[in-house]
Amino acid sequence: MVPQWVIEKKRDGGVLDESEIRSFIHGFTVGDIPEYQMSALAMAIYFRGMTDEETAVLTDAMMRSGDLLSFENWPCPTADKHSTGGIGDKISLMLAPLAVTAGLAVPMISGRGLGITGGTLDKLESISGYNTRLDVDAFKRVVSEVGCSIIGQTDRLAPADKKLYALRDVTGTVPSVPLITASIMSKKLAEGAQTLVFDVKCGRAAFMRTPEDARKLADSLCRVGRALGRKTDALITDMNRPLGRTAGNAVEVREAVETLRGAGPQDTRDLTVELTARMAVTAGTYPDLEQAKVALYAKLDDGSALEVFRRMVVAQGGDPAFIDHSECLPQPGAAVEVSAENGGKVTDVDAEAIGRVVLRLGGGRQQVTDTIDPAAGVDRLVQVGEQVEAGQPLMRLLARDRATAESCLPAARAAVTVQADE
Amino acid sequence: MVPQWVIEKKRDGGVLDESEIRSFIHGFTVGDIPEYQMSALAMAIYFRGMTDEETAVLTDAMMRSGDLLSFENWPCPTADKHSTGGIGDKISLMLAPLAVTAGLAVPMISGRGLGITGGTLDKLESISGYNTRLDVDAFKRVVSEVGCSIIGQTDRLAPADKKLYALRDVTGTVPSVPLITASIMSKKLAEGAQTLVFDVKCGRAAFMRTPEDARKLADSLCRVGRALGRKTDALITDMNRPLGRTAGNAVEVREAVETLRGAGPQDTRDLTVELTARMAVTAGTYPDLEQAKVALYAKLDDGSALEVFRRMVVAQGGDPAFIDHSECLPQPGAAVEVSAENGGKVTDVDAEAIGRVVLRLGGGRQQVTDTIDPAAGVDRLVQVGEQVEAGQPLMRLLARDRATAESCLPAARAAVTVQADE
Repeated sequence: MVPQWVIEKKRDGGVLDESEIRSFIHGFTVGDIPEYQMSALAMAIYFRGMTDEETAVLTDAMMRSGDLLSFENWPCPTADKHSTGGIGDKISLMLAPLAVTAGLAVPMISGRGLGITGGTLDKLESISGYNTRLDVDAFKRVVSEVGCSIIGQTDRLAPADKKLYALRDVTGTVPSVPLITASIMSKKLAEGAQTLVFDVKCGRAAFMRTPEDARKLADSLCRVGRALGRKTDALITDMNRPLGRTAGNAVEVREAVETLRGAGPQDTRDLTVELTARMAVTAGTYPDLEQAKVALYAKLDDGSALEVFRRMVVAQGGDPAFIDHSECLPQPGAAVEVSAENGGKVTDVDAEAIGRVVLRLGGGRQQVTDTIDPAAGVDRLVQVGEQVEAGQPLMRLLARDRATAESCLPAARAAVTVQADE
Repeated sequence: MVPQWVIEKKRDGGVLDESEIRSFIHGFTVGDIPEYQMSALAMAIYFRGMTDEETAVLTDAMMRSGDLLSFENWPCPTADKHSTGGIGDKISLMLAPLAVTAGLAVPMISGRGLGITGGTLDKLESISGYNTRLDVDAFKRVVSEVGCSIIGQTDRLAPADKKLYALRDVTGTVPSVPLITASIMSKKLAEGAQTLVFDVKCGRAAFMRTPEDARKLADSLCRVGRALGRKTDALITDMNRPLGRTAGNAVEVREAVETLRGAGPQDTRDLTVELTARMAVTAGTYPDLEQAKVALYAKLDDGSALEVFRRMVVAQGGDPAFIDHSECLPQPGAAVEVSAENGGKVTDVDAEAIGRVVLRLGGGRQQVTDTIDPAAGVDRLVQVGEQVEAGQPLMRLLARDRATAESCLPAARAAVTVQADE
């Protein structure tokens, strides 16, 4: 395999052979193929695309670049969900334990936030003592004992993806459906779950801005997953508005607990149940979505899912006190209310703007090396369709100090549109 | 300037600003911008192209990455020719001295051969003692004394091109008109000649396979040259068949001398005069092509051009004995005739196939690090339209030994098509 011939073939619109893709990815992973050839191939793929077969082979090659977890002969179906990321997206925190009540095992490996997009791992790390770095044996033991476990990505899972993603990030080759598919799927497949459900976010705060792009990615993820022997389903959900009434880390854990207690915002509760129901139906533990949803709402309301969550936290070394006493979560140094300038109906909450506010409050990362303030973020956020009076709060800004919070007031106020009553 | 933003802008079809192009090329040349970003940008340029303005800025930035020669206030117009390369293309050897007889000064910096394409420098180095590595002062002195000088490229001329070309060669980004234009022009402009004439080869042994592609490149070269203040002209010439009756190094020098003596194959003689006449007319030393051509044929026939050639060889340290005694050129260890299997009319001589034969005989380089056998090659080659009898020679294969020459017999015979008489 001559690397430049592979690049030229893709550049000219050809379909790469399995052996060409595997040799290229292997060579890149071990360092035999230099980054400048990988980035040229990535750009050619950006322009020419890949067939489903090529994408599946690319995914498989990247998956096999590292360790593969296996849950074969597990006593119940294994399943996982992946979201392409959004503002206030704390769904994984409720979904994993809720899925356990639906007869599934959920071995979930999550990522950190970057830019305006939050990460499940950062949220979990606001829980005192919670260990996100279990080794494979401990991870499997928690899945076995509790039914679910959420840990962070290790360097040994799909290292080709880690290396390729870092390169794509600086060479203008991120927005390519086959490359995104291979990146997401190689990690998720390496986890070993047999059922995968995707929540492809769509809207101004999402990676996919248009429904067409989101549909393309969703289809690609499902087809490649099936080609590689997994059961898959995908949902395209709105990411023009934040999910729920909180965005940050500790505040989202608090809202997750509320939701697991049968309360919580309706959108958050509904999406948790919808995605978990799809996992259950796809994996075969419920015959249809309606039955699954009825049962899962009940499991939120009767506290079963919360109980699984509590056991997971304890099994991973966390202090569960925050579940009944939310003041045990990290507390911000200052909380500043954003009040409505006029009364009326909330017609828009701009998720991207809220994401940028959370970043400035200290709740996110501009660079992967930045550290996060777990207590920073936004809570008590109004939602579209609600009625507010002039002077009433639209949200609360939480930061390490008053000056930081106040510096975000104009941007926060601008993020919410209140249409004056006629 | 954030390199990935520049890549993304070009990827999305945008027009790069002058400062973006200059910063990128400067950063790449000094090593601040890694090769993986340069190769991604090159691939984006491959797909999106560049405007004339972008190409001119790219060319200028690459030209300014190193030393600039200057022939300002020179007593006569300075001119040079560039050919995109072919089989048997020894035109520079005659053109430079012939142009001197037309009142021009020709400071020519030539390249080496790679793959099936020969290089003027390799041909000159088959002349005993000829020094292709003059420094700038010696180069200018020879141009001043003789009227022309042909030397090799130095590392100090357009180093950005050297670095970028090496990268393009292994990343599938060679065949891009703006990148080819910038590569050719940055070096030619750095030489300082005021008039540039391009011989864009077109055909199966040329880089440009179709007349449309050749026309695009020719136009791009001329427009960018004019945008950067030079007088330019371009000719598109056939490279389906070899030029002349020899292909190699010493054999081509011998044919060049014959042509400079007023003999030589008609195609070689005609193209030399045509290109030189265009240089003279573009530079203004002749009023029109017809007058220039009549005068230049006479300068070949009366030996004036050969005299300039002899003086150039001597000025650059070469032993001119080969001019009157061709046996002073390197001689092959073995010469094997390729005979016609049937009589008839020669309807095709495949330049690409002849190029590959020359390579295998030892007269070319597969890799830049390969060394060349100066005596190897092909001579006494039949030309299209000629009549041959069965058993008559089609060409002679010259190599270091008989076995090497004989191993090329089938390929050499297959390169010539003889249509049997009806």
